[in-house]
Amino acid sequence: MLILVTNDDGINAPGIKALGRSLARVGRVAVVAPEKERSAIGHGITMHKPLRATEVPWEGPVEMALAVNGTPADCVKLALDALLDEQPSLVVSGINLGANLGTDVLYSGTVSGALEGCINGRPSLAVSLAGEGEVDFSFAADFTSRLAGVIIKRGLPAGTLLNLNIPCLPPGEIKGLAITRLGRRRYCNTITRRLDPRGRAYYWLAGEVEDLDQEPDTDIGALGQGRISITPLQLDLTNYSYQQELAAYLPFLWPGQGNR
Amino acid sequence: MLILVTNDDGINAPGIKALGRSLARVGRVAVVAPEKERSAIGHGITMHKPLRATEVPWEGPVEMALAVNGTPADCVKLALDALLDEQPSLVVSGINLGANLGTDVLYSGTVSGALEGCINGRPSLAVSLAGEGEVDFSFAADFTSRLAGVIIKRGLPAGTLLNLNIPCLPPGEIKGLAITRLGRRRYCNTITRRLDPRGRAYYWLAGEVEDLDQEPDTDIGALGQGRISITPLQLDLTNYSYQQELAAYLPFLWPGQGNR
Repeated sequence: MLILVTNDDGINAPGIKALGRSLARVGRVAVVAPEKERSAIGHGITMHKPLRATEVPWEGPVEMALAVNGTPADCVKLALDALLDEQPSLVVSGINLGANLGTDVLYSGTVSGALEGCINGRPSLAVSLAGEGEVDFSFAADFTSRLAGVIIKRGLPAGTLLNLNIPCLPPGEIKGLAITRLGRRRYCNTITRRLDPRGRAYYWLAGEVEDLDQEPDTDIGALGQGRISITPLQLDLTNYSYQQELAAYLPFLWPGQGNR
Repeated sequence: MLILVTNDDGINAPGIKALGRSLARVGRVAVVAPEKERSAIGHGITMHKPLRATEVPWEGPVEMALAVNGTPADCVKLALDALLDEQPSLVVSGINLGANLGTDVLYSGTVSGALEGCINGRPSLAVSLAGEGEVDFSFAADFTSRLAGVIIKRGLPAGTLLNLNIPCLPPGEIKGLAITRLGRRRYCNTITRRLDPRGRAYYWLAGEVEDLDQEPDTDIGALGQGRISITPLQLDLTNYSYQQELAAYLPFLWPGQGNR
């Protein structure tokens, strides 16, 4: 039973170390993760430069611990296709320092590691702890290993992965567990404009989060109530419910064709 | 009527120039695009370095033509929040040289430009021409401007964007138009392992595409039949149909809690 572990905070981040230790109680663990932080890179892959995988020291039992000069998706591709001798029973990406909620999953390197596992037919899981600064990952790591055990036993449907977010609270204050949908968030005042010493403008991306949908059944809502959220995600982004309405426009776009 | 145009092949790519020219017949055009190619960066945003927007020469009528040292998502964020005086009626990303089909949309910089427009509440469209090398973008650009006119008039549902793929065929050989779903593809033999002059391994990502699902109702299938495909995509990746089954595992994960 092999578990592939990656992340986007880099192989030296405390979140992946806690995760690796905890998952070692469920199966054999192989760690293949970016050598440095790769946050907000989305589902990027590296095609224009060669990738290197370098062994790094790792405390505790591990099949391999390799730092890669690429993204989380690169790490998973490289592990599955070149580095591992057997296919893992599970791919786990995390534990990210900071939540990955709602629309933000589209930007998340953590989620992209799990997406890549899912694309390659492996049960996959992204894990984030909704804290900042110096935090204790041990409860989050223990809960993840419990969930990992269930996934390995029960499996996940093809094309489906899980996105797990854990409140940064003392374990006794966590209010339980919720199966959620993605909320909707966007950022406002995202751009800070400054002038350099020569008077030319430059811009920083930042911004304040604006939660457009944080109902209790969303991941954002569940975290806000102190609950752990598990959101099943799918690779298929097709909006099926809009296909028919869109088909009604076809005659305007391609005269002579019906609406199929 | 303002249309924001971006891409991931870079502001000097012929695809965005043809698109800009053609859309100028539908509305006023603002071009804000990466200064160089940003393919396969996924939905990345740039948070760790400042962004610059530099005016570049542009043939034909244009409100602005700015090259940005960032990703397509950066360009759209920057344009909407800092560069444009009014909100655009439409965001168009492309025309990409090469199709963006099936699971690959998750890696696509072109699609990510349109995703970012959609996140910010703008009707958005990604456009790709399924060719390579020296190709003629004029038919694809003309068709896109026709579709742009329809979208501006009719709108798109919140959280929904369109992914347009156009076969690289003489216009007379195009077999019509299809409203499609995403097919499924993955890559096999993705990794090429080599040794450097010092005998250390390095890896190139590449790989052959394997179409797992190319039924006629998929984008992959439609392109294969010489048809233009329009796939409505949604921001919400939640797999709703799996939520209930997943809820059955809750008692194993959080003893004492029911399955909600």
